[in-house]
Amino acid sequence: MYKVKLLLVFIFSTLNAQISQIKYSLETKYIEVPLDHFAYIEEPNVFQLRYLINAEHYDEMGPIFIYTGGKGDISVQAQNAGFMFDIASTFKALLVFIEHRYYGESLPFGDTSFSSLKHLKYLSTSQALADVAYVTKYLKTTFSEIEELQPTVVVFGESYGGMLAAWLRMKYPYLVTGTIASSAPIFDFPGLTECNTFYEKITDVYNKYGGQKCVEMIQRGWDIIAAALSKKKIGKDVLSELKICSKIESTKDVEKVLNWLQNILVTLAMANYNYPTNLYTPLPAYPVKVFCEKLTPYNEINNNSFIHHYSRALDFYTNYTGNNLCNNINYINEDLTEFAWNYQKCTELISPRCSTENDMFVTKPWNYEKYAHDCNARFGVKNVRPDWATLAYGGEDLKYYSNIVFSNGDMEPWLTSSVVDNITNSIFSINIPDTTNQVDLRQYNPADNNYVTETRNFHIRTIMQWLDGEN
Amino acid sequence: MYKVKLLLVFIFSTLNAQISQIKYSLETKYIEVPLDHFAYIEEPNVFQLRYLINAEHYDEMGPIFIYTGGKGDISVQAQNAGFMFDIASTFKALLVFIEHRYYGESLPFGDTSFSSLKHLKYLSTSQALADVAYVTKYLKTTFSEIEELQPTVVVFGESYGGMLAAWLRMKYPYLVTGTIASSAPIFDFPGLTECNTFYEKITDVYNKYGGQKCVEMIQRGWDIIAAALSKKKIGKDVLSELKICSKIESTKDVEKVLNWLQNILVTLAMANYNYPTNLYTPLPAYPVKVFCEKLTPYNEINNNSFIHHYSRALDFYTNYTGNNLCNNINYINEDLTEFAWNYQKCTELISPRCSTENDMFVTKPWNYEKYAHDCNARFGVKNVRPDWATLAYGGEDLKYYSNIVFSNGDMEPWLTSSVVDNITNSIFSINIPDTTNQVDLRQYNPADNNYVTETRNFHIRTIMQWLDGEN
Repeated sequence: MYKVKLLLVFIFSTLNAQISQIKYSLETKYIEVPLDHFAYIEEPNVFQLRYLINAEHYDEMGPIFIYTGGKGDISVQAQNAGFMFDIASTFKALLVFIEHRYYGESLPFGDTSFSSLKHLKYLSTSQALADVAYVTKYLKTTFSEIEELQPTVVVFGESYGGMLAAWLRMKYPYLVTGTIASSAPIFDFPGLTECNTFYEKITDVYNKYGGQKCVEMIQRGWDIIAAALSKKKIGKDVLSELKICSKIESTKDVEKVLNWLQNILVTLAMANYNYPTNLYTPLPAYPVKVFCEKLTPYNEINNNSFIHHYSRALDFYTNYTGNNLCNNINYINEDLTEFAWNYQKCTELISPRCSTENDMFVTKPWNYEKYAHDCNARFGVKNVRPDWATLAYGGEDLKYYSNIVFSNGDMEPWLTSSVVDNITNSIFSINIPDTTNQVDLRQYNPADNNYVTETRNFHIRTIMQWLDGEN
Repeated sequence: MYKVKLLLVFIFSTLNAQISQIKYSLETKYIEVPLDHFAYIEEPNVFQLRYLINAEHYDEMGPIFIYTGGKGDISVQAQNAGFMFDIASTFKALLVFIEHRYYGESLPFGDTSFSSLKHLKYLSTSQALADVAYVTKYLKTTFSEIEELQPTVVVFGESYGGMLAAWLRMKYPYLVTGTIASSAPIFDFPGLTECNTFYEKITDVYNKYGGQKCVEMIQRGWDIIAAALSKKKIGKDVLSELKICSKIESTKDVEKVLNWLQNILVTLAMANYNYPTNLYTPLPAYPVKVFCEKLTPYNEINNNSFIHHYSRALDFYTNYTGNNLCNNINYINEDLTEFAWNYQKCTELISPRCSTENDMFVTKPWNYEKYAHDCNARFGVKNVRPDWATLAYGGEDLKYYSNIVFSNGDMEPWLTSSVVDNITNSIFSINIPDTTNQVDLRQYNPADNNYVTETRNFHIRTIMQWLDGEN
């Protein structure tokens, strides 16, 4: 039913070599979990879920630290959650990283997991949460049948995985003592966040780290690039500058190129750490700054030279290997991770997005009908449910819950759809100045600013309090 | 796949005429709800759920009182939840009774809802709770898009419906302010309640209301009845005394008769109100007492006369119309309600039961393997999950929740698997002396004892506090 190329999923399983040679040692395990936790179905009714463990510092009196995997391969995510390894010895904790169903190796139907709605339909947040609850219960019960003797569990997660970590505590509080949810935009749903805020925040990031001139050039650039690509006969130089693999034959193709560029700019903002990282691709410190510093020296903006400069300024991202022959701008080559993620974005995780004159992107309204129509066309999903996540997880009304820390970089794109205020005396929010996504859950780095260090210390103290409360 | 006779489901839609002629007026509504809340499925992906409303005393400033339907037709349940009608004017409340999927008219696949696992599989507590959440949200949103302006919701439920009402507050606290859960045995799962407690409690009820001699006669009776039925040639008189419709040809048939009798004795204990009711069939006040008073005068216990007396003592139950020609002891004639319920008992709602020498029933151990095997044979359910309810709803660990009143009759069969202690300063338990199931949610009755009245007053005060807390 769906066309997906089986590409190699993520190859970046190490932290950037410039920082550290450490590769965290993890043992791979599999557990049989129900395919559908909420129904009794005919076979196959179970599948193998992957999880990774590290017991290096574990002592039987210690807690279990569970990481709720989000989008992507769990082994990549585990290698980027260095904070958990950094504090494992302090707590004598067992580290467990649970892969999200339909990502990495946790494919319920193997190679055909993405072949039709019949196989894909078990991909949902409720099922994923129940998986984690199931594995958590299994791990606790492995130690003792008696609840009082079972280890305490603290949950960690980042981004979408952070949302799951928070929801786990909200929906299954008796299983886990508390959650550290880093950069978890749990308000990124219709009615909770205005559609314009995401791109405005990214524009802020470029303003702060790249300067106003960079923002202006990006803003003016869209028309120039679109015009160059829309010409009946596109100059070979324009195409070769952008290194697009496919032909540009329609306005839709032009739009694809603009989307592709926009996604790169968004990614640079997401990965705008103050030290080199290898989260998406290998990137230098402050990639937004790097890009803008390459782009802004050129004052002469005409089609050819602008596109040349723009394209070269992005080379450190698009051609970091030096061997990239051309850039693919088509959906069809998305990897399985992106495919699964787009399915989730088309079903439950509906995040309204629009661009206005207040941001640096091409102005575009939020059109839910078109969005739903496209999702239907793509996945055959007839009942896109924009309100489900809010119904299931309670929207902004968090006062009934406890023991969750929401931490965010104050320069991260999703800040405006995250929890940025303390809600109760045990639902905390920390906004970490001058940082982007999920920095606090990364490994200690000499370049970390004081706020990051303080945030991590806060996490440690909070976890200690949670554990004390259980004893 | 399954053999079910389409019998008329419950005909008892009125309170017993001896008490009152009141028939509560209710408007019938239907709402389209997702068939599978946790997946995106191909069509049909929705069905019509029934709910009943009464707006007689409603004022737009008032709350919504929602009744979470349990096993059975919602119109029958609504007519037996008179307490909600009794207090509607005090609170100016809108009353809404939501039918449970797969019961009454809320059949996702109409006549074929029970035809195969493919259609039955959407019957689960998680789906049912999501239905109620969905309808609740819809009702609130109908009043205003703005959350702060939406009416407050209080939930009521009894027995299984009471479990759902409690779980609704636990899983969706932002939707509902509090729950009155009457006779809700939320601990009736493996590992939470000992298998012997249920029949011991019933024996207590017979001891208290029928006397020790009655219990002894029942205890001795099983062997006598079994022996009479097991004879190669069963005397016509024995068969005609018991009025069994089908032939007794095997030990399995004998077991069926004993089960049938046991179920009647259980039902009498469940319905052992101190005034006449019409919940299961029309019954007099204290049916346990009535039965025992008819049984115990006979001291001479030999096969024929004992069975004669036993059978006649039950006539007020088995032949209340005076027209019952014979008693059906086979599964095959269960109505759809019982069929759906047995499916639930075979999938999620696993309640261990055993009889020992401490109760008045035939000694029988709890044999989970046999139970699971029988469920598989009957419904094709391969993955009976005895631990799911505890995983999903947290077992005995209720300290994270708030605003639930658990009320129980201290002489009700399920008392030992219910919440009988206050858990926190907002999770209360009330044990109502000298009463059986769900009495507090029934209509006011002059025969109510003071404890029942006090319990209802407690409910009223508690609801007032909840509503005050919201304003």
